[in-house]
Amino acid sequence: VAVPPAAYTALREKLGQIHDLDRARAVLAWDSRTMMPAGGAEVRAEQLATLEGVRHDLLVSDEIGRLLEELRSYEEGLPADSDEASLVRVSRRDRDKELRVPASLRSAIARAKSLGEHAWKEARARSDFDSFVPYLERNVELKLRYAECFDAEHVYDPLLDDFEPGMKTVEVASLLCDLKEAVAPLAAAIAERAEAVDDSCMHGHFPAADQEGLLVEIARDLPLPPGTWRLDHTAHPFANAFATTDVRITTRYDERRLGTALFAMLHEAGHGLYESGISPSLERTPLCRPVSLGLHESQSRLWENAVGRSRAFWRRFFPKVQSAFPERFAHLDAEDVYRAASAVRPSLIRVEADEVTYDLHVILRFELEQEILQERLKVRDLPDAWNARVMDYLGLAVPRDADGVLQDVHWAEGLFGYFPTYSLGNVIAAQIGKAAHAAMPDLDARLEAGELHSLQDWLQEHVHRHGRKFTPAETVARAVGGPVDVEPYVRYLRAKYGELYGL
Amino acid sequence: VAVPPAAYTALREKLGQIHDLDRARAVLAWDSRTMMPAGGAEVRAEQLATLEGVRHDLLVSDEIGRLLEELRSYEEGLPADSDEASLVRVSRRDRDKELRVPASLRSAIARAKSLGEHAWKEARARSDFDSFVPYLERNVELKLRYAECFDAEHVYDPLLDDFEPGMKTVEVASLLCDLKEAVAPLAAAIAERAEAVDDSCMHGHFPAADQEGLLVEIARDLPLPPGTWRLDHTAHPFANAFATTDVRITTRYDERRLGTALFAMLHEAGHGLYESGISPSLERTPLCRPVSLGLHESQSRLWENAVGRSRAFWRRFFPKVQSAFPERFAHLDAEDVYRAASAVRPSLIRVEADEVTYDLHVILRFELEQEILQERLKVRDLPDAWNARVMDYLGLAVPRDADGVLQDVHWAEGLFGYFPTYSLGNVIAAQIGKAAHAAMPDLDARLEAGELHSLQDWLQEHVHRHGRKFTPAETVARAVGGPVDVEPYVRYLRAKYGELYGL
Repeated sequence: VAVPPAAYTALREKLGQIHDLDRARAVLAWDSRTMMPAGGAEVRAEQLATLEGVRHDLLVSDEIGRLLEELRSYEEGLPADSDEASLVRVSRRDRDKELRVPASLRSAIARAKSLGEHAWKEARARSDFDSFVPYLERNVELKLRYAECFDAEHVYDPLLDDFEPGMKTVEVASLLCDLKEAVAPLAAAIAERAEAVDDSCMHGHFPAADQEGLLVEIARDLPLPPGTWRLDHTAHPFANAFATTDVRITTRYDERRLGTALFAMLHEAGHGLYESGISPSLERTPLCRPVSLGLHESQSRLWENAVGRSRAFWRRFFPKVQSAFPERFAHLDAEDVYRAASAVRPSLIRVEADEVTYDLHVILRFELEQEILQERLKVRDLPDAWNARVMDYLGLAVPRDADGVLQDVHWAEGLFGYFPTYSLGNVIAAQIGKAAHAAMPDLDARLEAGELHSLQDWLQEHVHRHGRKFTPAETVARAVGGPVDVEPYVRYLRAKYGELYGL
Repeated sequence: VAVPPAAYTALREKLGQIHDLDRARAVLAWDSRTMMPAGGAEVRAEQLATLEGVRHDLLVSDEIGRLLEELRSYEEGLPADSDEASLVRVSRRDRDKELRVPASLRSAIARAKSLGEHAWKEARARSDFDSFVPYLERNVELKLRYAECFDAEHVYDPLLDDFEPGMKTVEVASLLCDLKEAVAPLAAAIAERAEAVDDSCMHGHFPAADQEGLLVEIARDLPLPPGTWRLDHTAHPFANAFATTDVRITTRYDERRLGTALFAMLHEAGHGLYESGISPSLERTPLCRPVSLGLHESQSRLWENAVGRSRAFWRRFFPKVQSAFPERFAHLDAEDVYRAASAVRPSLIRVEADEVTYDLHVILRFELEQEILQERLKVRDLPDAWNARVMDYLGLAVPRDADGVLQDVHWAEGLFGYFPTYSLGNVIAAQIGKAAHAAMPDLDARLEAGELHSLQDWLQEHVHRHGRKFTPAETVARAVGGPVDVEPYVRYLRAKYGELYGL
């Protein structure tokens, strides 16, 4: 092995510092959502802004620019899939994107984001969309200006690129269109036979402490290595990692529903397992992150749905659930709970949606984003457009904006281009699940035996370990042998729910 | 009020960022000691080093140098005790100190510190001083080189200055000498009458969960504003603050001793109250910290001893203790527990020492530090010198180095000059306690009524709010009207323990 040139060593050191600042920011964000007393919020916001600002300054520094230039021939002499060539290539791309946007616009966006988030909280509490309009208009205006910094074919391309690098608006639009055509009729057919699945066992009273005991038992079977992770409570569950060996997952307890905390934990564990599975050789580099939100979400949905809502899972874990809540589950069996956990019930709220209707929530948001950003729809007309589409796709009337257009924080924070990654995650999860099953025909039996690490080992080898070395499209291709494709997902939904609902 | 010049605004912004990085480092350190899974340690060390390095680079940057120069006449035109003049003055001093030490020496010290800490852990576990010798020698050598960077009269002056800015070795030596002359005979006299105080009620079996319930009750009376602090567990209790409104305190539960967790909490709460009491106008500036370790420790010892080991405290809290451990305290009263909590028992371990013998532990460390740094004592001869002095001052034979010279982490981390601040804290606490009592003659009655905020209000007004605006000596003078003086402390010890032991 040739010794890398001094410029490479210097670049890696600088990039290590930038990564450290990024992870330090993640620690502060995790703390603020799980541990921080309320009084710390104001100063914490400044601390987070400083870490972001210092990180930015280091990344765009002339020194890194010079090192990246100096390393062109070194990079070209290496295989493109080597850690070294990938580090130079990806860092150059990161830096180029960072340089495209003037500092003044960046700070205007950051400011509008925090004002927007605050205004949204108030507006949602009072279900008062009008008061939120100027903040949302400001976010839209700034995101249009942001998009202009890139010579993009479509105004939405640069926004999408922040979450799903390299994917184009036309691709995702076509994919979501195919998905809608398959899911909408399936959801309609299920609605006709809603009584076929009884999910009453998942509703009632489940004390948080008992749920937590159950979760800790189930978590013991998860393939997260001991001493490398922890589980905490938070209002809005999330996962993050401060190192591949320091993963933090969170969940939320709803005492009226057994599924909320359990599926949130499995979902966040999926995110955490991705972070945990990245090659240690990439630690403290910008490659040591999941490659996109779509891929990230594919791992959370895989663990939440393909594992957590599978027969195999419930055959193993049903006895634990039964012993945690003996009265509730005395006369039921694993199959009953499997069915209940998979029940389809159109709802107003995305984060509470079942597997079948979930993507309809995403699609309507994507469609509205397109219209807003192409200035075909005015911000103030959003509620009507939202409500019409909810009636159209889900057959539900929206009683108040808090349960409609005001339910998600994303737009309040200027996160346009983010929503489609949720559906991309579902789609990719199905492709990856299919590939894993093809590689391990006895995978279901292994999951039923509690050997969850079999799946994790495969995912680590075929997805996780690469981190950000390749593009999302390349990463998918390496795992499943082809491009993103809705077909396996649609087939999975039709097979599972066709059987459950006797379609 | 005149508008400050642009250079001042720019300086404050830069200093705000430096402070943010410092506080971010504190969050990461707190997390690593209370929350982090073990797997995160290695990467966390890199993250902490990066935050420290970036903070250093910003502070010594030419830009800050230029701003400080530019602000000389502005500073001179302001009252010295204004926030603005203080910020410029203190920042200039901070930067000058930071510039004195070459980067290569700084990183050698940081490296020796982390190697030393690791070697110490191993050595202490096996009570094997010999294996620790080369690491300690390296720390001593580097600290001598560090001291050489400053044109100091005494090699120990620059080391002491890092913890007690402005104090000279001769001052602290004279002060500790006076203290020894007063405390040693007092300890000896008490040893003759050890049976006069029965502390058996503090020993036994106290389940951690019951202790925690008691601590939460007592903490409710502490004058830390709700929503601005939290209490966690850790192996070695500490306190830190990430904002004046975000204070973290920790404690440690020993199920065999009731006092450990309680007094650790009060001690750390004292540190936390100091951070909490700094003027909000200093938030996000380098002035927003306790001014020295001596002053910091004065606050922790005040709450631990002058409050927590007072009759007034136990008169109020005895019923809570009695109801937490009814069997243990059934036939006792507040006076019994006050006496037990104040029992004097010479021990080998500093952190378990009582009020009277504590300073003897500090004094012997200070004396040995002097001899080592003046090269009158060789590192490898430390255990013999230590053991001889423990026999001399405390009348105890040291059975093994783990309970002797290896007990503290400080020297392993190169922290020479730190120990005397513990005794300075005791001394200053007594001066401040005396001044507070003089200002509020009914203070004991207020404390007995649970009005702990009376004391905190006075401390905030006379000590806390200044942060680092003044030197430690000026801060003491403002609070007590004169210089650091051992007399009030000696008088306090003689009065309290004279009565308790019938001397």
